[in-house]
Amino acid sequence: MSHIRGRFQKAAHRLVVDYTSSLSFDRRLYRQDIAGSIAHARMLAKQGIISAKDAGAITGGLAAIEKEIEEGSFKFKPELEDIHMAIEARLTEKIGEAGGRLHTARSRNDQVVLGLRLFTRDAIGDTIEAVRGLQRALVTLAEANKDTVMPGYTHLQRAQPVLLAHHLMAYFEMLQRDIGRLEDCLKRTDVMPLGSGALAGVAYDIDRKFLARELGFGSISRNSMDAVSDRDFVVDYAAAASTCMMHLSRLSEEIILWASVEFAFIELDDAYATGSSIMPQKKNPDVAELIRGKTGRVYGNLMALLTMLKALPLAYNRDLQEDKEALFAAVDTLLPSLEIMAGMVSTIKVKAGQTGEAIERGYILATDLADYLVGKGLAFRAAHEVVARLVNYAAGEGKTLRELNLDEYRRFSPLFTDDVYAITAEASVSARDVPGGTAPRQVARALAVAKKIVGGFESEK
Amino acid sequence: MSHIRGRFQKAAHRLVVDYTSSLSFDRRLYRQDIAGSIAHARMLAKQGIISAKDAGAITGGLAAIEKEIEEGSFKFKPELEDIHMAIEARLTEKIGEAGGRLHTARSRNDQVVLGLRLFTRDAIGDTIEAVRGLQRALVTLAEANKDTVMPGYTHLQRAQPVLLAHHLMAYFEMLQRDIGRLEDCLKRTDVMPLGSGALAGVAYDIDRKFLARELGFGSISRNSMDAVSDRDFVVDYAAAASTCMMHLSRLSEEIILWASVEFAFIELDDAYATGSSIMPQKKNPDVAELIRGKTGRVYGNLMALLTMLKALPLAYNRDLQEDKEALFAAVDTLLPSLEIMAGMVSTIKVKAGQTGEAIERGYILATDLADYLVGKGLAFRAAHEVVARLVNYAAGEGKTLRELNLDEYRRFSPLFTDDVYAITAEASVSARDVPGGTAPRQVARALAVAKKIVGGFESEK
Amino acid sequence: MSHIRGRFQKAAHRLVVDYTSSLSFDRRLYRQDIAGSIAHARMLAKQGIISAKDAGAITGGLAAIEKEIEEGSFKFKPELEDIHMAIEARLTEKIGEAGGRLHTARSRNDQVVLGLRLFTRDAIGDTIEAVRGLQRALVTLAEANKDTVMPGYTHLQRAQPVLLAHHLMAYFEMLQRDIGRLEDCLKRTDVMPLGSGALAGVAYDIDRKFLARELGFGSISRNSMDAVSDRDFVVDYAAAASTCMMHLSRLSEEIILWASVEFAFIELDDAYATGSSIMPQKKNPDVAELIRGKTGRVYGNLMALLTMLKALPLAYNRDLQEDKEALFAAVDTLLPSLEIMAGMVSTIKVKAGQTGEAIERGYILATDLADYLVGKGLAFRAAHEVVARLVNYAAGEGKTLRELNLDEYRRFSPLFTDDVYAITAEASVSARDVPGGTAPRQVARALAVAKKIVGGFESEK
Amino acid sequence: MSHIRGRFQKAAHRLVVDYTSSLSFDRRLYRQDIAGSIAHARMLAKQGIISAKDAGAITGGLAAIEKEIEEGSFKFKPELEDIHMAIEARLTEKIGEAGGRLHTARSRNDQVVLGLRLFTRDAIGDTIEAVRGLQRALVTLAEANKDTVMPGYTHLQRAQPVLLAHHLMAYFEMLQRDIGRLEDCLKRTDVMPLGSGALAGVAYDIDRKFLARELGFGSISRNSMDAVSDRDFVVDYAAAASTCMMHLSRLSEEIILWASVEFAFIELDDAYATGSSIMPQKKNPDVAELIRGKTGRVYGNLMALLTMLKALPLAYNRDLQEDKEALFAAVDTLLPSLEIMAGMVSTIKVKAGQTGEAIERGYILATDLADYLVGKGLAFRAAHEVVARLVNYAAGEGKTLRELNLDEYRRFSPLFTDDVYAITAEASVSARDVPGGTAPRQVARALAVAKKIVGGFESEK
Repeated sequence: MSHIRGRFQKAAHRLVVDYTSSLSFDRRLYRQDIAGSIAHARMLAKQGIISAKDAGAITGGLAAIEKEIEEGSFKFKPELEDIHMAIEARLTEKIGEAGGRLHTARSRNDQVVLGLRLFTRDAIGDTIEAVRGLQRALVTLAEANKDTVMPGYTHLQRAQPVLLAHHLMAYFEMLQRDIGRLEDCLKRTDVMPLGSGALAGVAYDIDRKFLARELGFGSISRNSMDAVSDRDFVVDYAAAASTCMMHLSRLSEEIILWASVEFAFIELDDAYATGSSIMPQKKNPDVAELIRGKTGRVYGNLMALLTMLKALPLAYNRDLQEDKEALFAAVDTLLPSLEIMAGMVSTIKVKAGQTGEAIERGYILATDLADYLVGKGLAFRAAHEVVARLVNYAAGEGKTLRELNLDEYRRFSPLFTDDVYAITAEASVSARDVPGGTAPRQVARALAVAKKIVGGFESEK
Repeated sequence: MSHIRGRFQKAAHRLVVDYTSSLSFDRRLYRQDIAGSIAHARMLAKQGIISAKDAGAITGGLAAIEKEIEEGSFKFKPELEDIHMAIEARLTEKIGEAGGRLHTARSRNDQVVLGLRLFTRDAIGDTIEAVRGLQRALVTLAEANKDTVMPGYTHLQRAQPVLLAHHLMAYFEMLQRDIGRLEDCLKRTDVMPLGSGALAGVAYDIDRKFLARELGFGSISRNSMDAVSDRDFVVDYAAAASTCMMHLSRLSEEIILWASVEFAFIELDDAYATGSSIMPQKKNPDVAELIRGKTGRVYGNLMALLTMLKALPLAYNRDLQEDKEALFAAVDTLLPSLEIMAGMVSTIKVKAGQTGEAIERGYILATDLADYLVGKGLAFRAAHEVVARLVNYAAGEGKTLRELNLDEYRRFSPLFTDDVYAITAEASVSARDVPGGTAPRQVARALAVAKKIVGGFESEK
Repeated sequence: MSHIRGRFQKAAHRLVVDYTSSLSFDRRLYRQDIAGSIAHARMLAKQGIISAKDAGAITGGLAAIEKEIEEGSFKFKPELEDIHMAIEARLTEKIGEAGGRLHTARSRNDQVVLGLRLFTRDAIGDTIEAVRGLQRALVTLAEANKDTVMPGYTHLQRAQPVLLAHHLMAYFEMLQRDIGRLEDCLKRTDVMPLGSGALAGVAYDIDRKFLARELGFGSISRNSMDAVSDRDFVVDYAAAASTCMMHLSRLSEEIILWASVEFAFIELDDAYATGSSIMPQKKNPDVAELIRGKTGRVYGNLMALLTMLKALPLAYNRDLQEDKEALFAAVDTLLPSLEIMAGMVSTIKVKAGQTGEAIERGYILATDLADYLVGKGLAFRAAHEVVARLVNYAAGEGKTLRELNLDEYRRFSPLFTDDVYAITAEASVSARDVPGGTAPRQVARALAVAKKIVGGFESEK
Repeated sequence: MSHIRGRFQKAAHRLVVDYTSSLSFDRRLYRQDIAGSIAHARMLAKQGIISAKDAGAITGGLAAIEKEIEEGSFKFKPELEDIHMAIEARLTEKIGEAGGRLHTARSRNDQVVLGLRLFTRDAIGDTIEAVRGLQRALVTLAEANKDTVMPGYTHLQRAQPVLLAHHLMAYFEMLQRDIGRLEDCLKRTDVMPLGSGALAGVAYDIDRKFLARELGFGSISRNSMDAVSDRDFVVDYAAAASTCMMHLSRLSEEIILWASVEFAFIELDDAYATGSSIMPQKKNPDVAELIRGKTGRVYGNLMALLTMLKALPLAYNRDLQEDKEALFAAVDTLLPSLEIMAGMVSTIKVKAGQTGEAIERGYILATDLADYLVGKGLAFRAAHEVVARLVNYAAGEGKTLRELNLDEYRRFSPLFTDDVYAITAEASVSARDVPGGTAPRQVARALAVAKKIVGGFESEK
């Protein structure tokens, strides 16, 4: 029988027990629950609310239970609603009446949100570490191919030449923002809720700041009703995770494109590709596809949380139990996606021959041609129109720009002179020598900064 | 080593194996996979593509494997990517080379979608049955309280008296549409995809209609590229499930309101309520809250699927593997939510005293008063304004409409005569005697129709 | 002053008037509102609830108002909350007291949902027509290129040769399901709600079936409380629109890929491409990109509606006003997306040279090679492994399969003989001669069926 | 003809012009576009890229155009794709060739994202101000009712008495986090992208830091490819807006409950309520319902943006144009929702009689009774069970706790003595005297802090 059915005449329906129990998924919070309870017991003793002896029995019992769980000898009884009840019931079983004193000046409402905040804090730390790992992989790949020029695309059309390293560093920047977002989320997670009771605070002389210190929190919650009903930090994590997965989906898309026969800019390592059950020639970028596909899952978790919280009155409502699975799913999707992406990026083999060849074909230097005319005094819009007509002509003739002779150039503008042939992909890239631009000098600088930010590069040498 | 790494020099990274494997969740499709393979083997033999002997070995082996799985002796090896591979590998282990012939004229792409269609077909059937169960519970509760009049609300303000049975039957109608939606989804699920191969169809003289008949499908897919990449039926299920959960969330909200001290229209059975760890007086509608909260989860699954499918080129991409967990989560949330809601509704105790009292207070008969004036010849808008002023006056005096004397009435319109006191909640309800209205005659008719639709009532007498 | 503030002492705050008014967007429902009111007035007269003279004045007045609106002379006063109020106020202005009788036996709650159902019914019809238009464009493009063979992709890797027409017809099938979904949605939209009153039905002897006939509805709503609070049909439309946009996003993605320099399978017509402000050589598939991007908007509308409806108690709540803008946005996004996609598809120029060349390179016939070995008696799995090794060898040698000599083939299996060279892309395609397969015979059949379904082709000859 | 169709033979299809044009909605960015262009022109002149004379003509022309737009004399021609083109075209019309020089060292890709960042920066500022306004309203209402005790709810069941002011201050805390989230979003918005060109940076010696200073940005973007494709800041805003709307939806739900006849804790001001077209007695909380309903819209905008960005390759793609309407819709929904909620909260009349009465009924002091027993030495869990049985008994007898005599108390525990009658709602509230608790002392402190944070209170005295 559940511990909280005292007033009731009847046991809960079997189906209800299963439906309402969170033990199957919140058991992973056992460490957080025990840490919280130990801190709580110490505080109660310090304040003289329970005896030192009781506190000792409680903390000892809890430590033993933690060990039981880690060794696999702990029995999770489904009729105990959640991990908190399961641990407390076991505690009372072990140490008797003192176990019943642990819940003094505490409610399950502040207890569960404490556990969730401890978990989220850890999850944020792990996620930041995993993002750093992917940043490191990107920097490493960029450095290893720092002279490779490739077509930069807009609208998936070749637009202007860029350094591959510059392209990769765009993802470094996205991930850098992801870390910022996670750190922002941490600020709002790092708040100690215990002492809020069920909703109104507790009627005991407790020391909330002591609890915060014991558990390593930066601050304590400021309103008890808010504290037990606030799940913003979970939404924040899911939103940050959604944006991060969105970034991964963009990188995945590019890896899939680049690994296609049509682009052929990279080759994936066998360890990060799979074959086909029916087409033996295939080397499929399944891992990138899965990351891209799992993006939807994290978006879905965010939407689940926002929907759940919509129009919930204060204070605690059982709907809030739905916070955990959505959070766990977001963490369990994002973390391995980051790790595996790092592994995949690290092992990518760039086919510089292909990227170079791609630069040669097409009219990717047309912007540079327009800039050339601007340099000779034409207004930009006018220069643009001259080059547009010129490209149209060249395409009609089946010639590249390089293959046009000066006469042909001059049919479109008398400003063209011999130096037009100095326009090359390398020159084009080098010319974009503004902060944030693709010129080798700028990219080298960006890489140097990135290595300092990310750390961990010295040891690799 | 995976069966499909033939061309590769290197094993997949351990992390990749875990990340890409679907065995942990798609193992629940074992029955569907085996059924599909047995039908395929029979078809291959019938067409002379494999020998009768091989087909016999295959179907015998598969039947034995099904038994192994059900008895728990089957070893699920994580390095086998999915349930389809796991079963085929075991088959070859058991029957040798003949096992290798099963995959003739089949690809994993059409094989997985076959399994998913079989699963979805079953899930739709189960869901419809569960919706029927809740409809039955609503009809039963409505019949047991068929004379109970309660306030009908708009804007959560008391508006006009209605029969509780009428109110409950509104949910019957929602659920009736849910069934329609599920049946529509079934039409698009009930399509046999085998024979589509990897994407282009197969180069064997197979009999797809035979496969459809064997597996009980209504039709065969009409385009192989569409067939292996189509997951519309999963989206359809998730959309139907979302709408159904939305309906359940609305009913949950009302149950929560009605079970509050403020409304006090119903009492929940102890088996469907829970207590508080800190407030012994509480009887909390946790079950209804959880159903309401889980609505977000199903919305999230729908969003996950739609996001995953956005901008996927043809034909099969590994992103599609993400279909399964979202579908499973939707089914595993909706089914028990329906069942538990049926149980909760069945055991609700209506407090007719409270609903009756709620009718007496307030000015819930004001519309009837306006209709009364219309009956005496006033235009509706004018009648509405008279009654608005009258109610304002009564509220100012702290009187109910019944407590006003005729002089007071006549101050607002000379059309009022003694018969104004014949306006009662019962009269109001009975007057709404149009199809779909709350008059007892109409509601009784609706209940009779409902019982025929739902079935299962005769046996209860 | 608003018509419905009779009881109130104070005017609404200016900000409130703006915030709550729906006139700025629901004015587009004027035709539906007037049609509904005319039918209602006729019914009231037929039933003797209002006089024939009043009904005549009302219907005449409404017809005149419709003309005023269409001519642009109607004044939309923002202080009138919605189009329904705006029209009724104008009616009373024009015809005096009789105008006030129109609202007899009607509430705004059933009136607004009537207007929305009429609108949705029309929107579904228009959408189906637009889907048909796109189907026609696909069939036309497929027929015009019916011999073009191109690589079929899985995982964006070349997998097996397919007919371009077969590939295009995959989208035909998706759209065919979209139509089915829209028709299903129509069934649930085609329900006449008038007579439900505010929530309880009306206390007048009205004829709801007459109303349904007048307005062309297939049935009448069965429960008044459900009728005024049901927006399932709007969710259904948004869900169908989301799936349809998802299909368009997939087609857009492919068009973007095919129009890239790397694939170069098609050339977009100038009318459906745009240039670059800075890169004169670009021909960007902006239209396809925008369609792909707008997919998110329709998903968002679906999510908005589901969120809005979550946990709404019965019956009408003002939240429901949010149904309109989400529906309008979905319709206004989907319809032009379909039309413009049809125009773009119609004008695509297929570059058969490029698709053919793509077939030649690579190992796209490997599956056929495996099937060849199966035909000679090898089990499929064994054949697959032979071919995998063979392809690996060829790739190492830098040879295509065609360039290997028989000795080389036989090093991997003695089953290879001279007839291995008969394996060509054309043979491969033709071999997949199962229903739904890519063989020319099957595709021709599919096109013939499609033309009958879609109609409109005879006239084009 | 569009300025960027130079290479094309054919005008865009009419439908395409409408579909791709953003002028109808991005015209509201005119101020941002002009500010950006003026800064750009100044920088170009400072760097000697254009002449001072040209720069003067450009900035003068732009200032004149701004005036034209504000006076309504500017002609927005639909064939100009967006506000940027419309302004530039008009500039060239006004000042001739110099206008064509403005686009030097700039691309539409960096230009549009500059405008959007400037807009978002302003929107964040406005939103923070609006949140502050609502916080002020909450504090004012809390102060005006600082002694009002009301039931605190969990599971919508009366749980423990709380101060109304404490309850309101829970929303203050939520809004405080909203501000934090908006400020975090601002950090990532406050980045100057100009100089990124189309994707690769520009080939001119520009001064990006000068641009940042001129436009008041805190930093410059660090990677040009990221800069033109990054819309994270828009997602951040939409996520912050979603959470803020979620908070408003929770407050709305409570206002709707409290304004119901059943709760009757508050009365809404007439200016923030509406009447019924058919039920003259109604005073409907439409405004709160609309805010609650509009929550879905903002969630939908977030989902639209995330979906749009999923799997977009670098760098600019036209899909990104979809950023604007989603952002505008989020801003245009959130801002008035905050403002109107502030107005509504400011004018709420609390019915202290009703909240007091609600405290008396029920068993809301049961937790205090359990704490009482704990104070006498019983373990909490044991005390909880005693009180549960006691409440059950009292409910059975139809008595309140106060109505039980000491004998009855002692039947459940001998620890009860006369002082049990000192347990009152006021005592209960006062006892929760921990930081964040509902004790008057704590709440007064919280209010004092809040007033300092929000500001604007001195002037009101």
